Amino acid sequence: MRRQIAELLESKKFIELRALLKNMEPIDIAELLEELPEEDLPLLFRILPKELAADTFVEMDSDQQEILISFFSDRELKEVMDQVYLDDTVAIIEEMPANVVKRILKHADPEMRMRINGILQYPKDSAGSIMTIEYVDLRRDMTVMDAFTRIRRTGVNKETIYTCYVVDDNRTLLGLVTVKTLLLSSYGDIIEDIMEKNVIYATTLEDQEHVAEKFSKYDFLALPVVDMEQRLVGIITVDDAMDVMEQEATEDIEKMAAIVPTDKPYMKSGVFETYRKRIPWLLMLMISATFTAMIITHYEEALGALMVLSAYIPMLMDTGGNAGGQASVTIIRGLSLGEIEYRDMPEIIWKETRVAVCCGITLAVANFVKLMLFDQVGVLTSLVVSLTLLAAVLVAKLVGCTLPIAAKRIGFDPAVMASPFITTIVDAISLMIYFQFATLILHI
Amino acid sequence: MRRQIAELLESKKFIELRALLKNMEPIDIAELLEELPEEDLPLLFRILPKELAADTFVEMDSDQQEILISFFSDRELKEVMDQVYLDDTVAIIEEMPANVVKRILKHADPEMRMRINGILQYPKDSAGSIMTIEYVDLRRDMTVMDAFTRIRRTGVNKETIYTCYVVDDNRTLLGLVTVKTLLLSSYGDIIEDIMEKNVIYATTLEDQEHVAEKFSKYDFLALPVVDMEQRLVGIITVDDAMDVMEQEATEDIEKMAAIVPTDKPYMKSGVFETYRKRIPWLLMLMISATFTAMIITHYEEALGALMVLSAYIPMLMDTGGNAGGQASVTIIRGLSLGEIEYRDMPEIIWKETRVAVCCGITLAVANFVKLMLFDQVGVLTSLVVSLTLLAAVLVAKLVGCTLPIAAKRIGFDPAVMASPFITTIVDAISLMIYFQFATLILHI
Repeated sequence: MRRQIAELLESKKFIELRALLKNMEPIDIAELLEELPEEDLPLLFRILPKELAADTFVEMDSDQQEILISFFSDRELKEVMDQVYLDDTVAIIEEMPANVVKRILKHADPEMRMRINGILQYPKDSAGSIMTIEYVDLRRDMTVMDAFTRIRRTGVNKETIYTCYVVDDNRTLLGLVTVKTLLLSSYGDIIEDIMEKNVIYATTLEDQEHVAEKFSKYDFLALPVVDMEQRLVGIITVDDAMDVMEQEATEDIEKMAAIVPTDKPYMKSGVFETYRKRIPWLLMLMISATFTAMIITHYEEALGALMVLSAYIPMLMDTGGNAGGQASVTIIRGLSLGEIEYRDMPEIIWKETRVAVCCGITLAVANFVKLMLFDQVGVLTSLVVSLTLLAAVLVAKLVGCTLPIAAKRIGFDPAVMASPFITTIVDAISLMIYFQFATLILHI
Repeated sequence: MRRQIAELLESKKFIELRALLKNMEPIDIAELLEELPEEDLPLLFRILPKELAADTFVEMDSDQQEILISFFSDRELKEVMDQVYLDDTVAIIEEMPANVVKRILKHADPEMRMRINGILQYPKDSAGSIMTIEYVDLRRDMTVMDAFTRIRRTGVNKETIYTCYVVDDNRTLLGLVTVKTLLLSSYGDIIEDIMEKNVIYATTLEDQEHVAEKFSKYDFLALPVVDMEQRLVGIITVDDAMDVMEQEATEDIEKMAAIVPTDKPYMKSGVFETYRKRIPWLLMLMISATFTAMIITHYEEALGALMVLSAYIPMLMDTGGNAGGQASVTIIRGLSLGEIEYRDMPEIIWKETRVAVCCGITLAVANFVKLMLFDQVGVLTSLVVSLTLLAAVLVAKLVGCTLPIAAKRIGFDPAVMASPFITTIVDAISLMIYFQFATLILHI
């Protein structure tokens, strides 16, 4: 495909090129444009039919959008931006440098400019910041026929027409009616009689993560957004909710891996940017390991007396870390899917204790057998290592399951309480247990 | 709410209770039923209007569904199941014990039974297994008016009516037309002229993860599913795609934390079940740590000569593990979102090398300063530890970024190549480096 298009471009067969592109999805064209040399970008873009061009523009990444805008005449820029839905306009503006933003806003009409500025004022990651204002609104005294007339007249520029919202003169949200309901009703039916009155909505300042949860819980295609006075100010569509879900899952995963989360895809981030996202936690966790060093130094003599003990330190650390990581990651995911709440804490601790005992005994026995048969370090040493293993798993699972819930309770992000963090704590505790057991059992 | 309903139940105010429940979303009713004593379940369920009852049934978890079914008369069971969309029926059947499945199938009419069996035959996690067969199909020679008539006549039982699929006599998929297009066209327009011909579809055996990716890429509300002969056999709706996305993200997260993934929510899994999902990796990783023990034992004498070296083993292990985990998790997520491909490997390795050098130097310098000023272990020892740290970070990042891609390349699941696995490898390598440096620099 890419080669075919490059050839058509080369031989200037623009009509064939247009015919070919016309049948493609905007996102596929956008991906294709990304692969082409920069100087071909404006030419190819101008070949596209107007509406497809605008849809493609929305799907491009911000670097490419910026390049294209720099090639656009003022009229072209206005033409493209007029075709773009408001939520996409806002998303584009958020990524552009100030001078480009100025250019875009200059060519928007005053009402649009006001609306864009309105949305830009909502905090990042709030429902208001991702909503669009292109929806179909109806009045309660309309008939189904009136509603269809309104949809036909205004629907072409709306992001979705399938859920229509019923408002009064103050724009207070009264209800909603789906096109399915409209189609299955008689033309003479009154909207008020067929509308769904118990509308689930988001408020402008609500966290986008909650919004996405509502979508996945209730299977909506769109969700209305209201302000403090219950007035309808916009809607969020399911495709944006999916993006939020994906983005939030990525953020959680990054935090669990001790990375400062970022919106930027990996392949688009520079080396220094990636470095900046990773070094803070690495540094902090490294310094926290001071405790383990202190503990070992403290027991240096004991260790010197029985060097074999040092051989099992990495195994104990890793197993503790893994066991704790399993518990914490399970809890973190459960919290972020809304499956786990604070009040479940006693039940979780009780369950993790039992799981930890089962896992710990299995591992300790397996380890004891291995130490006796293969490493042949003697019963007492095998016992010390295996008992420490059991204790480490128990501590790790308990720390792993309580910390994320506790973090959430005091308003911290639970995702940070994943393996790396847990490991650091568990390491110190299990080392202490190790040397305690060694002192007790081996009398060193 | 819960208390209010319990009180109404207690005082047998069923009419008020029904009025209250009627306005709630099915999933909210299902969650409420979960909290009530088992014996109230059938009563409360029977109060619900028929359609709402069926929708609520779908949202309940399988234990509760099973309890309800055991209370149902045969007629009730048939009434509920007749209201349920086919994809939900299949999902319910998959969770039920054999005798309940038999009862459900016995009361389905023969055609439905055939269809259910048809879908049950698709492999787990395939597009075929999550599709529904309730969609609106149109013929290309229909007018828009004909299309509306068909939607009005058959739409009430369809899971979505907003995307209609155009098929020929052999049910070959020819195109699609959205209700938006229909509403914005004239009644006399012919479907063939207004339909979208370049339809993106899934095949029955396609992995559900790919299907979900198509949804998030193209922002569809529904995706047609075709068989080997390009015949339309079903559709997948966006709400199911969202569920798949969420489920796949959870699976990835679990694998990254060395847990055998499961569909069951944490709070519903028993202790033994949870144990079984966690112990295999713990055991395997514990045994893999044999290498670290062997390395330390091998260098026991060197270590004995300079005990201080052992104090920094946990810090080196943890930092290496964290650094490798960051790289691997980033790559795994990129792979599963389709942002990273095999051909990006050289670019990734080059980038990770530079990031690793930056991170490694920062950590090494910070560590060197700390060792000199606070631990006061002398220049040479500080040098050995810091150089090892640099090398460990470098190795960790490279192992972390290459293993997931390599795993994917040979058909393994990249998510398994996350922190726990990487840590085990990196631990062994960095220990060897540590003792090499110690031998070279400290001559022990």
